[in-house]
Amino acid sequence: MIPDILSPGQYDTVYNSLSLVIAAQLFTAVFLLIALPRILPRYRQAITVAIIVCGIAAYHYFRIFDSFREAFVTEAAGGQGDYAQAAGAGFNEGYRYVDWLLTVPLLLVELIAVLALARSVQRGLLVRLVPAAALMILLGYPGEISGDNGIRGLFGLLSTIPFAYILYVLFVQLTKSLNKQPVGVRRILSQLRWLLLLSWGVYPIAYLLPMLNLEGADAWVFKQVGYSIADILAKAVYALIIFRVARIKSFDDDPEFAEVERSLDEEPARV
Amino acid sequence: MIPDILSPGQYDTVYNSLSLVIAAQLFTAVFLLIALPRILPRYRQAITVAIIVCGIAAYHYFRIFDSFREAFVTEAAGGQGDYAQAAGAGFNEGYRYVDWLLTVPLLLVELIAVLALARSVQRGLLVRLVPAAALMILLGYPGEISGDNGIRGLFGLLSTIPFAYILYVLFVQLTKSLNKQPVGVRRILSQLRWLLLLSWGVYPIAYLLPMLNLEGADAWVFKQVGYSIADILAKAVYALIIFRVARIKSFDDDPEFAEVERSLDEEPARV
Repeated sequence: MIPDILSPGQYDTVYNSLSLVIAAQLFTAVFLLIALPRILPRYRQAITVAIIVCGIAAYHYFRIFDSFREAFVTEAAGGQGDYAQAAGAGFNEGYRYVDWLLTVPLLLVELIAVLALARSVQRGLLVRLVPAAALMILLGYPGEISGDNGIRGLFGLLSTIPFAYILYVLFVQLTKSLNKQPVGVRRILSQLRWLLLLSWGVYPIAYLLPMLNLEGADAWVFKQVGYSIADILAKAVYALIIFRVARIKSFDDDPEFAEVERSLDEEPARV
Repeated sequence: MIPDILSPGQYDTVYNSLSLVIAAQLFTAVFLLIALPRILPRYRQAITVAIIVCGIAAYHYFRIFDSFREAFVTEAAGGQGDYAQAAGAGFNEGYRYVDWLLTVPLLLVELIAVLALARSVQRGLLVRLVPAAALMILLGYPGEISGDNGIRGLFGLLSTIPFAYILYVLFVQLTKSLNKQPVGVRRILSQLRWLLLLSWGVYPIAYLLPMLNLEGADAWVFKQVGYSIADILAKAVYALIIFRVARIKSFDDDPEFAEVERSLDEEPARV
């Protein structure tokens, strides 16, 4: 439940977290757009998807931020008093689901695209992962908007089924393909899967908070900060690691490209 | 008719649907802009039109979204109460028609352009399809803004005439040209025509809702969600399928381009 009152400190914490996410997503997208030529064309599809994901997330955080600013107001001068829920505007949490419905399947596309697997293998993984991801988000939504803990628990449980399936595909089926990746890449990709698991793990915890009777303003602020950090890890940091994978693979695939790129990075020896 | 009262759930559903359309159109346009070099120049005109269509749709949805937010207000704190029509601002449905007047003819241009037919054949199809599409939208408008079911029915009927003509051109006249397309493309294009028929079919259904006495807030919310999904299918999903067609045709036209692109997509076999 959205709290009736936020202290100035609680208000500022949420405000700053939401703003941090906008900056992180937007400028990760800008960075990747500029850096696109520094990987082989083969990996640019994955980074393009990463740019789209960070862009979509930035868009939704602009909305969430605006919604938050309208939802809480203070009468006190200088914002030194408590913030109360404003008349006429509610904080819209549904945005997060709209965002995830678009971005979560794309995050999996990003991961599969950077592997540059044989077309048939790639297709086989995507037809499993993308619908499962969409289903996971869709099943979570009715529980999130419900005030009833029974309904929340039921849909939370249902949405865990596609989540478990995604983990099965990533940690069991994908492992076979990973063995064909260069050694350095294999380690990073393995870390990437763990980052995905850890950052995605924040969402069900936040989802379950209301069921643990962790109500009140602090729990709610904690949830907003948690979602914000998870979104930065799962999208922006994840995108930068994908970029790193793409760069290592580019160097590994094409020694000539590697040499040119290395010569761009280091200044020539001065005599 | 626009309902006088929306429950918080109804309000949020419309709000999130409209926002989802903005994100879908905007980032489909961004994706296509980045992906443009990955098809032969001959098909870039079609994708350019697709980018314009998604961009125009995103712009109008920004307007529709803002109009919706201004049109409904709640007095209750935290947006937990019902939303009533605001004094001084109405929800402007006319925007949809302005959008369609620009985008619907362009959607047909997109379809014809990606076929890359002989210039005379292409011109022959466009001089039929574009005016028919504009006429279809223009004839629908007086019915949409009328509160009278007789006028609504009359203009609905009139606007069905150019719609039927468009279907005739697409399913009868165009079929002759399709036979000259590569086999893989023929199947996709056939699916594309069905997507067009199905997604465009949502609009007359929504248009007729008031005549079926399906009044009330639920029917209206259903109509907004329906229009939103139809706009995503008819523009963003449609554009991605057109891109797929352009890519297959690029490969088919130019084996050298195909080889370069395939080598770009898949990593070389590691020894």
